[in-house]
Amino acid sequence: MSSRSQTGASGTPLLDRISGPADVRGLAAHELPALASEIREFLVEAVSRTGGHLGPNLGVVELTIALHRVFDSPRDRLLWDTGHQAYVHKLLTGRKDFERLRSRGGLSGYPSQEESDHDVIENSHASTALSYADGFAKAHQLRGLTDRHVVAIIGDGALTGGMAWEALNNISATKDLPLVIVVNDNGRSYAPTRGGLAEHLTTLRTTQGYERFLEWGKDRLRGTPVIGGPLLDTLHGAKKGLKDFVAPQGLFEDLGLKYVGPVDGHDTAQVESALRRARTFGGPVIVHCITQKGKGHAPAEQHELDQFHAIGAVSAKKKPSGPSWTSVFSEEMVRLGGEREDIVGITAAMLQPVGLEAFAKAYPKRVFDVGIAEQHAVTSAAGLALGGVHPVVAVYATFLNRAFDQVLMDVALHGCGVTFALDRAGATGNDGPSHNGMWDMSILQVVPGLRVAAPRDGARLRALLREAVEVEDAPTVVRYPKGAVEADIEPVASVGGLDVLVRARGVSRVLLVSVGAMARVSLEAAALLAERGVGVTVVDPRWVKPVNSALVGLAAEHELVATVEDNGRVGGVGSAITQALRDARVTTPVREFALTQKFFEHGSRNELLDEAGLTADNIAQTVHESLAAAGAHHLQDVS
Amino acid sequence: MSSRSQTGASGTPLLDRISGPADVRGLAAHELPALASEIREFLVEAVSRTGGHLGPNLGVVELTIALHRVFDSPRDRLLWDTGHQAYVHKLLTGRKDFERLRSRGGLSGYPSQEESDHDVIENSHASTALSYADGFAKAHQLRGLTDRHVVAIIGDGALTGGMAWEALNNISATKDLPLVIVVNDNGRSYAPTRGGLAEHLTTLRTTQGYERFLEWGKDRLRGTPVIGGPLLDTLHGAKKGLKDFVAPQGLFEDLGLKYVGPVDGHDTAQVESALRRARTFGGPVIVHCITQKGKGHAPAEQHELDQFHAIGAVSAKKKPSGPSWTSVFSEEMVRLGGEREDIVGITAAMLQPVGLEAFAKAYPKRVFDVGIAEQHAVTSAAGLALGGVHPVVAVYATFLNRAFDQVLMDVALHGCGVTFALDRAGATGNDGPSHNGMWDMSILQVVPGLRVAAPRDGARLRALLREAVEVEDAPTVVRYPKGAVEADIEPVASVGGLDVLVRARGVSRVLLVSVGAMARVSLEAAALLAERGVGVTVVDPRWVKPVNSALVGLAAEHELVATVEDNGRVGGVGSAITQALRDARVTTPVREFALTQKFFEHGSRNELLDEAGLTADNIAQTVHESLAAAGAHHLQDVS
Repeated sequence: MSSRSQTGASGTPLLDRISGPADVRGLAAHELPALASEIREFLVEAVSRTGGHLGPNLGVVELTIALHRVFDSPRDRLLWDTGHQAYVHKLLTGRKDFERLRSRGGLSGYPSQEESDHDVIENSHASTALSYADGFAKAHQLRGLTDRHVVAIIGDGALTGGMAWEALNNISATKDLPLVIVVNDNGRSYAPTRGGLAEHLTTLRTTQGYERFLEWGKDRLRGTPVIGGPLLDTLHGAKKGLKDFVAPQGLFEDLGLKYVGPVDGHDTAQVESALRRARTFGGPVIVHCITQKGKGHAPAEQHELDQFHAIGAVSAKKKPSGPSWTSVFSEEMVRLGGEREDIVGITAAMLQPVGLEAFAKAYPKRVFDVGIAEQHAVTSAAGLALGGVHPVVAVYATFLNRAFDQVLMDVALHGCGVTFALDRAGATGNDGPSHNGMWDMSILQVVPGLRVAAPRDGARLRALLREAVEVEDAPTVVRYPKGAVEADIEPVASVGGLDVLVRARGVSRVLLVSVGAMARVSLEAAALLAERGVGVTVVDPRWVKPVNSALVGLAAEHELVATVEDNGRVGGVGSAITQALRDARVTTPVREFALTQKFFEHGSRNELLDEAGLTADNIAQTVHESLAAAGAHHLQDVS
Repeated sequence: MSSRSQTGASGTPLLDRISGPADVRGLAAHELPALASEIREFLVEAVSRTGGHLGPNLGVVELTIALHRVFDSPRDRLLWDTGHQAYVHKLLTGRKDFERLRSRGGLSGYPSQEESDHDVIENSHASTALSYADGFAKAHQLRGLTDRHVVAIIGDGALTGGMAWEALNNISATKDLPLVIVVNDNGRSYAPTRGGLAEHLTTLRTTQGYERFLEWGKDRLRGTPVIGGPLLDTLHGAKKGLKDFVAPQGLFEDLGLKYVGPVDGHDTAQVESALRRARTFGGPVIVHCITQKGKGHAPAEQHELDQFHAIGAVSAKKKPSGPSWTSVFSEEMVRLGGEREDIVGITAAMLQPVGLEAFAKAYPKRVFDVGIAEQHAVTSAAGLALGGVHPVVAVYATFLNRAFDQVLMDVALHGCGVTFALDRAGATGNDGPSHNGMWDMSILQVVPGLRVAAPRDGARLRALLREAVEVEDAPTVVRYPKGAVEADIEPVASVGGLDVLVRARGVSRVLLVSVGAMARVSLEAAALLAERGVGVTVVDPRWVKPVNSALVGLAAEHELVATVEDNGRVGGVGSAITQALRDARVTTPVREFALTQKFFEHGSRNELLDEAGLTADNIAQTVHESLAAAGAHHLQDVS
């Protein structure tokens, strides 16, 4: 209601004048610092209200302004890697209503083709932009559209992802592809970036050449009108070609890539100059921008770690009512680490978000942050297991997709005891389709030997993690959702490893199989059915792969089996149970309740579950109708 | 029968004395060239008989000898990336019975833990060894086993794979990890390697420093006893530390990795010296070996392209009885390319094996070989599609697993018109578990919007490829097996897009759904059932995803549905059809015939299909029993 844009000229007079890139180009150079200030003020206020990625966006304010002044989007294509850094881009392309950012019906937290022609990549999985750009530029070239530019903006952290390397290797082989790669280097994309690449970038950042360049460049540029000017052409290095423009190039030059930089990413004039030079070069070129994550907002600047990468809404910052799934995992890992020296943790640039920070503090030598490199995370885990320790790879469920082949071939084929802790499994919601962890229980079904556990509450998460790390000859997976952990639900009985959560009073007609965190909803559905006089038994299989034979036995004693899972309905637990029943010649029909197999628009987790019919009401209603239909069918059969 | 080892002392007296690495270490340095000759002679003769990877193994003879002299396998661990270069390693670790190489019951074509303690990685997917090694070495360090060495041997081609880069980035961050990386650089791992990395390696190979080193080194080493000697310690560079041992380091040094080389990979003494130096270094170090693929065998040396990467058995070299699936695809691509300028081809270092060579010759600007980089192949295809052309990504089915996330997020989420041609889909056999393409129809089921076609013969491959490239707003997949294409089977009718291959005479009790190349087996099963008086209708859905609604309608009219597919049975086409029937409240039972969900031992394609029960006899028998059981059940119901 108190939309920033409605406050009008009071706080952001320059920003208010901008409804598209042409307006950005229309500003005088001396107005740009003020515009940058307004944008920062706007973002801090807006994102504090809604939650979202603040730090990364504060870091790219000047860079984004410069990009829209030098390039002509959407004719030229701006490709944002890991699109959470696109808020400024949204503002400059006419999207200023941040009131409902990341809420259903509001702006997406990432670029979105549906929102704007200026958006191309919607994907928030990292390290993709260079490959997209390579393809895009090649398509332009094939179609003779040689005057269109393709610009990929990628963080230094995303450069640790293997596919970025694959792209660089290919791009460097195409000398005439007009392609600008902006490396947005803040030295800590999620957390301080690790590895040899990070050290190399640090070298580039800190060489005397750079220091000299900055001082010299600032002297030259101070007070000089830059827009459209051929200033950079006059620079010392120009006659020798771009590659010698500034001394340090190292890695990129070894690959045959031209390099401009490093430039101060918070000096719009400098960035503009470098981009203009790169634009006219005619071949692939890297522009190395040094930026500061959280720039201009003290709390975000000062955080060494990644708490300010993304923030919750102000209201959500209050202490949550209970611990999160992540924190339960975190505590249990510390405990396990104390009991077993051979347990090690692996994370892909997500030490704090996946809950391995406490483990790292307690056992610093036994945790490995591999950078944004899920493939390496998984296969190095296989190596660790072959070498005699037990790795726990903690990763967001959706990012395990990056390493499916490695799970299948490198871990499972080799019978390695590796445990995967899949956080943010199931519907996550606000981050949009690429963050929902709705694929894991389907694609992992095909992996021979792999076992999957889905805990329903904190006590089960602890217990199943313990069971998982006991398995030494096959991969194990423990998957759990985002947010506050469910209150413990104790079983009324245990049957062959299954937890019985509710026993039907009288005849049990329906076997309700509740997977993981769907237990609460399943119990509510059972209660609704009981009210209608339908006897329901609710079981939690705990381990959902392989299908427990006790489950098959129970199914045979019921009229209907209903499965409830927070995963895509294609090929998930419901499908696996159905196949197990067919194989055992059990003819009890099965109804699967699961996430619709589609890319969900962003919204809250509950909105997504509602949309997919994963509610007690819908489950109870559908089960009731199925029973009635089956009864009618049965009568028909007998008649 | 005429086993080489039975010919005794006649041809390979030195090799005959070797039953393990200790025997290799026991040889005098002057005997090594003769041993190398014997090994080459053995391999050329043996592999010509059985088929297999000849070129890569001829290239690593001296390197493998040196590895087993310097390191103490299995105490030290030798990790072969893309294990088809491990034949020499097998010979030196006591496995000389190559008579049944790659046949059921004979030696695997790759390392195999079951065969030998000297084997670690069984996986033949490329670029994994560095990650394994990183994990292995870290495990040793954690366990205090600091005197054990881990050696990864990786080809220059595999270095184009992104996960190798992820590993290098991580390894370079661990200064004290005793880890030796041998880069086996032949400049054409599959085909001439592409990209900036390849050019960089060429630079390393051809610098004056290298030339000078080779000459100088040869002078020094000539006639000098090397074994155990501290020769290299005396070398000029030693006082400055390894990194300055020889001038060119470039890329690796930028990453902070120590580098030794390049060394002549066919000079055992040189390689040994370098490896000994690397072994004592105490941190990760790269040993750059220059080798020649096919070394010592003129036909293999001379082939520029990859025909000699792997060869068939002599008997199989005769012109096959008919064209292969690959050649049909190849021809149709050339035709399509002539009709539509916007069609482009993409391959990941497999131009010839996937059949894009002819297309590349006809339209050289419209084909992109990205190296061993499936992730980039897929996402650059998304970029090409967004840029307005239609890419056809031709890849072995098993290797698409490397890019599952990219298919899901980068292509499907963005609604890109990209066509995937999956060659070697289904059981492939001789190359063992990591080459069987039995996962694609399961994991692709979960991808929203993606469509999958499975042609049953050459005519259908042509037609479905044409239909696939017409789709511009979603990914399409055409998958087909290895080997000779099936003779065309014309439909007797078409129902809502389904091809009816056989109509039952009289009452049709069984609907047999034949997927792709399983048509021949399905027709034979139908004939067997007809002989027993069971009416069977055989349909080929052509497009297996999404499930055709006409199929659901037909299923409702039958007593039993049987699905026959050359894919893992978990989550495949059978599962999808079953779910579609449940959703439509069609209660006809379904029996799925598919590959057992396990890692198959190597064997012929037919042996694997037999083992999985994908034979006409088994299908007919099982269907017959299912009908009988259902009849009994039905009687029981009524009684």
